[in-house]
Amino acid sequence: MFLTRTEYDRGVNTFSPEGRLFQVEYAIEAIKLGSTAIGIKTKEGVVLVVEKRITSPLLEPSSVEKIMEIDEHIGCAMSGLIADARTLVEHARVETQNHRFSYGEPMTVESTTQALCDLALRFGEGDEESMSRPFGVSLLIAGHDENGPSLYYTDPSGTFWQCNAKAIGSGSEGADSSLQEQFNKDLTLKEAETIALSILKQVMEEKVTPNNVDIAKVSPSYHLYTPSEVEAVISRL
Amino acid sequence: MFLTRTEYDRGVNTFSPEGRLFQVEYAIEAIKLGSTAIGIKTKEGVVLVVEKRITSPLLEPSSVEKIMEIDEHIGCAMSGLIADARTLVEHARVETQNHRFSYGEPMTVESTTQALCDLALRFGEGDEESMSRPFGVSLLIAGHDENGPSLYYTDPSGTFWQCNAKAIGSGSEGADSSLQEQFNKDLTLKEAETIALSILKQVMEEKVTPNNVDIAKVSPSYHLYTPSEVEAVISRL
Amino acid sequence: MFLTRTEYDRGVNTFSPEGRLFQVEYAIEAIKLGSTAIGIKTKEGVVLVVEKRITSPLLEPSSVEKIMEIDEHIGCAMSGLIADARTLVEHARVETQNHRFSYGEPMTVESTTQALCDLALRFGEGDEESMSRPFGVSLLIAGHDENGPSLYYTDPSGTFWQCNAKAIGSGSEGADSSLQEQFNKDLTLKEAETIALSILKQVMEEKVTPNNVDIAKVSPSYHLYTPSEVEAVISRL
Amino acid sequence: MFLTRTEYDRGVNTFSPEGRLFQVEYAIEAIKLGSTAIGIKTKEGVVLVVEKRITSPLLEPSSVEKIMEIDEHIGCAMSGLIADARTLVEHARVETQNHRFSYGEPMTVESTTQALCDLALRFGEGDEESMSRPFGVSLLIAGHDENGPSLYYTDPSGTFWQCNAKAIGSGSEGADSSLQEQFNKDLTLKEAETIALSILKQVMEEKVTPNNVDIAKVSPSYHLYTPSEVEAVISRL
Amino acid sequence: MFLTRTEYDRGVNTFSPEGRLFQVEYAIEAIKLGSTAIGIKTKEGVVLVVEKRITSPLLEPSSVEKIMEIDEHIGCAMSGLIADARTLVEHARVETQNHRFSYGEPMTVESTTQALCDLALRFGEGDEESMSRPFGVSLLIAGHDENGPSLYYTDPSGTFWQCNAKAIGSGSEGADSSLQEQFNKDLTLKEAETIALSILKQVMEEKVTPNNVDIAKVSPSYHLYTPSEVEAVISRL
Amino acid sequence: MFLTRTEYDRGVNTFSPEGRLFQVEYAIEAIKLGSTAIGIKTKEGVVLVVEKRITSPLLEPSSVEKIMEIDEHIGCAMSGLIADARTLVEHARVETQNHRFSYGEPMTVESTTQALCDLALRFGEGDEESMSRPFGVSLLIAGHDENGPSLYYTDPSGTFWQCNAKAIGSGSEGADSSLQEQFNKDLTLKEAETIALSILKQVMEEKVTPNNVDIAKVSPSYHLYTPSEVEAVISRL
Amino acid sequence: MFLTRTEYDRGVNTFSPEGRLFQVEYAIEAIKLGSTAIGIKTKEGVVLVVEKRITSPLLEPSSVEKIMEIDEHIGCAMSGLIADARTLVEHARVETQNHRFSYGEPMTVESTTQALCDLALRFGEGDEESMSRPFGVSLLIAGHDENGPSLYYTDPSGTFWQCNAKAIGSGSEGADSSLQEQFNKDLTLKEAETIALSILKQVMEEKVTPNNVDIAKVSPSYHLYTPSEVEAVISRL
Repeated sequence: MFLTRTEYDRGVNTFSPEGRLFQVEYAIEAIKLGSTAIGIKTKEGVVLVVEKRITSPLLEPSSVEKIMEIDEHIGCAMSGLIADARTLVEHARVETQNHRFSYGEPMTVESTTQALCDLALRFGEGDEESMSRPFGVSLLIAGHDENGPSLYYTDPSGTFWQCNAKAIGSGSEGADSSLQEQFNKDLTLKEAETIALSILKQVMEEKVTPNNVDIAKVSPSYHLYTPSEVEAVISRL
Repeated sequence: MFLTRTEYDRGVNTFSPEGRLFQVEYAIEAIKLGSTAIGIKTKEGVVLVVEKRITSPLLEPSSVEKIMEIDEHIGCAMSGLIADARTLVEHARVETQNHRFSYGEPMTVESTTQALCDLALRFGEGDEESMSRPFGVSLLIAGHDENGPSLYYTDPSGTFWQCNAKAIGSGSEGADSSLQEQFNKDLTLKEAETIALSILKQVMEEKVTPNNVDIAKVSPSYHLYTPSEVEAVISRL
Repeated sequence: MFLTRTEYDRGVNTFSPEGRLFQVEYAIEAIKLGSTAIGIKTKEGVVLVVEKRITSPLLEPSSVEKIMEIDEHIGCAMSGLIADARTLVEHARVETQNHRFSYGEPMTVESTTQALCDLALRFGEGDEESMSRPFGVSLLIAGHDENGPSLYYTDPSGTFWQCNAKAIGSGSEGADSSLQEQFNKDLTLKEAETIALSILKQVMEEKVTPNNVDIAKVSPSYHLYTPSEVEAVISRL
Repeated sequence: MFLTRTEYDRGVNTFSPEGRLFQVEYAIEAIKLGSTAIGIKTKEGVVLVVEKRITSPLLEPSSVEKIMEIDEHIGCAMSGLIADARTLVEHARVETQNHRFSYGEPMTVESTTQALCDLALRFGEGDEESMSRPFGVSLLIAGHDENGPSLYYTDPSGTFWQCNAKAIGSGSEGADSSLQEQFNKDLTLKEAETIALSILKQVMEEKVTPNNVDIAKVSPSYHLYTPSEVEAVISRL
Repeated sequence: MFLTRTEYDRGVNTFSPEGRLFQVEYAIEAIKLGSTAIGIKTKEGVVLVVEKRITSPLLEPSSVEKIMEIDEHIGCAMSGLIADARTLVEHARVETQNHRFSYGEPMTVESTTQALCDLALRFGEGDEESMSRPFGVSLLIAGHDENGPSLYYTDPSGTFWQCNAKAIGSGSEGADSSLQEQFNKDLTLKEAETIALSILKQVMEEKVTPNNVDIAKVSPSYHLYTPSEVEAVISRL
Repeated sequence: MFLTRTEYDRGVNTFSPEGRLFQVEYAIEAIKLGSTAIGIKTKEGVVLVVEKRITSPLLEPSSVEKIMEIDEHIGCAMSGLIADARTLVEHARVETQNHRFSYGEPMTVESTTQALCDLALRFGEGDEESMSRPFGVSLLIAGHDENGPSLYYTDPSGTFWQCNAKAIGSGSEGADSSLQEQFNKDLTLKEAETIALSILKQVMEEKVTPNNVDIAKVSPSYHLYTPSEVEAVISRL
Repeated sequence: MFLTRTEYDRGVNTFSPEGRLFQVEYAIEAIKLGSTAIGIKTKEGVVLVVEKRITSPLLEPSSVEKIMEIDEHIGCAMSGLIADARTLVEHARVETQNHRFSYGEPMTVESTTQALCDLALRFGEGDEESMSRPFGVSLLIAGHDENGPSLYYTDPSGTFWQCNAKAIGSGSEGADSSLQEQFNKDLTLKEAETIALSILKQVMEEKVTPNNVDIAKVSPSYHLYTPSEVEAVISRL
């Protein structure tokens, strides 16, 4: 019953009688309101595509960043509260730079993801770096390290999974089904670009243009596509 | 249902079951009560106009500051709680001065905006500098750096967007529509002045005079118009 | 509806759904219960008059201080909670003394006002100097610096305005109307004294005597009128 | 309506919609339950009389101290919570001793009163010295300094007033009326003793004896009357 | 009305509308549930008697300590929460030892009592030594110093009184009446022993034995009676 | 009435109107759910027996420790929350080791018990070592020092008693009655073993085996019985 | 009654009237929602098997880690919130490394388990390392030290037990019954592998494959089975 649920769900970090953490579940709801992002891992590298939701023609499309570089071998696409995502990405950037400085080599993609999730897990703990509520954001982290290309998916509970392909945001349900149908381990990066963008197109309400989607790849370095590179992918649909 | 909503919306930094942060949404409401401000970016620079709402003839119009200088190459117009805006601007002034001192060059407009939003995002975190509630203010930040002129728009959630033109405050809805109709990338700064003030005039209840509007430009330096310069723009309407 | 409002208004520093800060609004109510104070700026200086509300003939009128000196070139009249006002004035006195010591020159009236409002704005922040609730007091700050005479008005939200003339307290509404009618920029200080006291007389329930009003001027130094000087102004009404 | 009031009055330091601070008002109620104390200022010095409320014949009357010495030139009578009063008096004793040590001269009566009220005002602020609730006590502070004799009255809000005569506690209303009738500036100290005790006698339920009243004077030094000195004043009634 | 009262009484340190501090009043209730203790002051010294409430024959009577030594010239009897009393007594022991060490002389009985009450008063203040609730204990403090024998009574509010005789605990009402009838200033210590124990006997449900009462005197040193000394007093009843 | 009680009982350290501390009473309930433990003091030493409640045949009986050594001359049996008991025992072990190190001699049994209870009393005080709730455990502390053998019983309020014999846990009521019948001061340690185990057997639901009971003695050193030693006692029943 | 229960269960660390700690019980519920894990101890070593719940074919099975290495001689299987388990395991890894560094030898399995539980017990205490709620995870800790192989089971209350065999998670009830039937102390490690996996198979909804189960042993070192090793065990069912 809804009324009973409200007894538990405002305590930021409290179990309900069924063993649930409602604030985390509500943060996950915040992501269901977010724009869709899709990642696909191939042997050649990882591709990320996102919907940009340009709410006004007067917005500078390039200033709506939903794919960001973490280090030269790691990038991430986000869905949910953008300001929260920026905090997490900034944290990851410092971690990867510190790692390079201390060890003279890039941080692995898994360690970077773990560092992000450690921060996300500690919401409500009153630490200096942590937030008083869960981070309302999911990330698709694409990277390339000594183990080759990899794609991670994180949620607001601080849990992460390694995936071959994954969609997040408001269109994630339909997109995930399409990914399961169309993904196979032998996709080329070019095929992955086309599949990711065609699936994103299905779940977007608007026509796809270089203005309202962003595409990036990590292969083996992070690269955000220029408008003409995006246009080229669109033309292949 | 309204009654249920109240269960969540007093927690300063708590998600509702739908994944919303009500205190941020209410702070955005505070801005809808504020005076209107408009910014337009042109190739020559950025122009800002604001309504001053002189509530009494005994107020000194020049003491109602709704456009403020952040650094010599950055200014901002505000709508919402003035005292909150002052805190943010003061923070940005310190950041830009520190940057000049440390690096011997001006801070970029984007970094300055990011610094402002980092402070805005951390409300409710108990930091020394942050507030216990969201900042009830939106800013239009106009600047000019190595990338040329730029205009940013910030909201109480700590999110920012780069825009070609934007209106904030009680008249923002109508003003934004007018901006979309009248803006184009080839406007001269002089044309932008006229458009911005004519749109502001439409949403103001009172007659426009040098007393109840302020105009500023960043081209490439910040300059607040004198009453006679304002009068000159009014006369062109 | 009143019942709904109570859901928001006890959070010291929380927005209501309409974007309002109720504790600040309630503090403003505290001032509406306060005694009336009036300030008028002239080219020769600024005059302040206040009602003293001597509730018992056994009170020592001179101990009811509602006009206080901040520095030799700044004074202020207050309405609302006297103990709160004393804290703000004491803070301003320290700031102006520190400024003189550090820079060898008086602090400007605007900087002094800003320093007062910075403290007022930070209520509920848990700082060492700040209060856990808004300061329940409005001030009329009269001063004289390199820019000539000036009059500022502050409210509990930490906002301030520069004015030519202003009334605060329980009789402020009527007094402000009268000020708008009678004020002009060419008043002499003597005329301003007469106008201020005659307007105060209209809103006071009791007969005006040297015991129940105080008058001060800053021209260019702060001077609190002696009973006979007050008597002289009364006799001109 | 009472029910609505309860919504505001438990917040220790929160304004009600009418701009009231209920915890301070309730603390003032605590004093209305207290024993009556009366102070009268004359040109020769100040006299204080208090009712002692000896609830059991087995209590040692001299251990019920409701008049206490602060410094050799300052004493005070109290009404309300005795343990709170002791804390305030102890604070004032330290302040006056420090002042003598630092400046080689006695602290003025007004500065001493101000120091007491600064502590009283900061309730709920979490300071080391302050309380988490208002001090439930009113004081009549009698002193003699370079300005001659003076009498101050403080309440739980941290406000103070200088008076010629004042009554506090459960019988204060009636006693204040009598004081207004009988007080004049030319009273001798001896006359003031008689008037104060006769008024106290009217509001006390029991017969006045050296056991259940205390009398003290500051003229110019603090002196607590011995039982026989009290007996002498009683005999003059 | 009871329902309304509950609105105020859980705030540990908050005034009710009538100016009452409910947590202190409830702590006083805790003492009314406690075992009875009686103290009588004579010219020869002070005698304390307490009921021990041995709830099981398997309890070691000597381990139920309700009379404790504070210093060699001060002892105290307690009623209420024993663990709270131990904390207060331990605090007093440290204070008296420190005093001896610093000044080379015993602490006076009043100063010791004051030190105890200072700690008791500061409940809810978050100090390191203080408790988050009032101490649920009353003490009868018997001592002998340069002013001769003295008997103090403290309650949970941090207030204390000097008495000639006093009873605390569940039987205090009846015992106090008996004390008023039987006490006079010329009692010998031996008579006081007999009176105290005979009054305690009246309010106890069980038969008086050396196992279920303790007797101590301060005359001029603290001495806890041995079972045979207690037996001797019993035999005089 | 139950509903009214709930108003007070969640405040961890708050008095109810009847002067009760509900959280302590509820912690005592936690112990009534615990397994039964029995201690008997004889002139030769102290014996402790406990029920182990092996809930599954797959549990390692020796890992269910309900009797633990504190120092070589002190052991304790526990009932209630095992994890809480471990914290208390660990605290006591550090205290006794520190005492040996500082003074070169064993800590007395009473001082050790006092140290345990000091920690237990300070729940809810925010200390580093204390808990935010009462410790949900009772202990029977058996020891042997310069005063011979002794047995202490502690409860969650931080109070302790010295006993000749005592039972705690779910079967304590019946076991205490049996102890009162069968205990006398001249029991040998061997007789005490038999009595304790036969009483424990009466209150246990299962058959007594070396797997589901533990026996220990302090005589004068702590010794936990081996399964065959336990078997030997069982065989005497 | 459920409604009454909600009065107590949100206080993170508060007893209910029956002496229960609801937040711990609710955390235990979280584990009942978790995937099943089983451990069996043999004389040759300990085997752990877990269900992996691969929710999407696009997830990388090897990235779903539910068995983790703590030290080379200790591993653990988990059920409940994975992010919580990671925090506990990371804590244990640091403890065991520190122990090796300080003492030059491996930490015993019991000490490692105790260290984990010490952290788990202190939830809600505001420590730097502890959580503000119980850890929502159970662990099966398998190890091998100087005492041979051992298996520990921990729950969210910070309690632990040594077991011969144990199941946790959603299928634990049925699995525990099967373990009691099939376990005996003379099982070989190979037989234990077969039994553990066949029992896991019974409680899993899906077909067992090398993708959706993990197997590990400590014998005497930790070893996580490769897919082909898992396949080999499956083929023996």
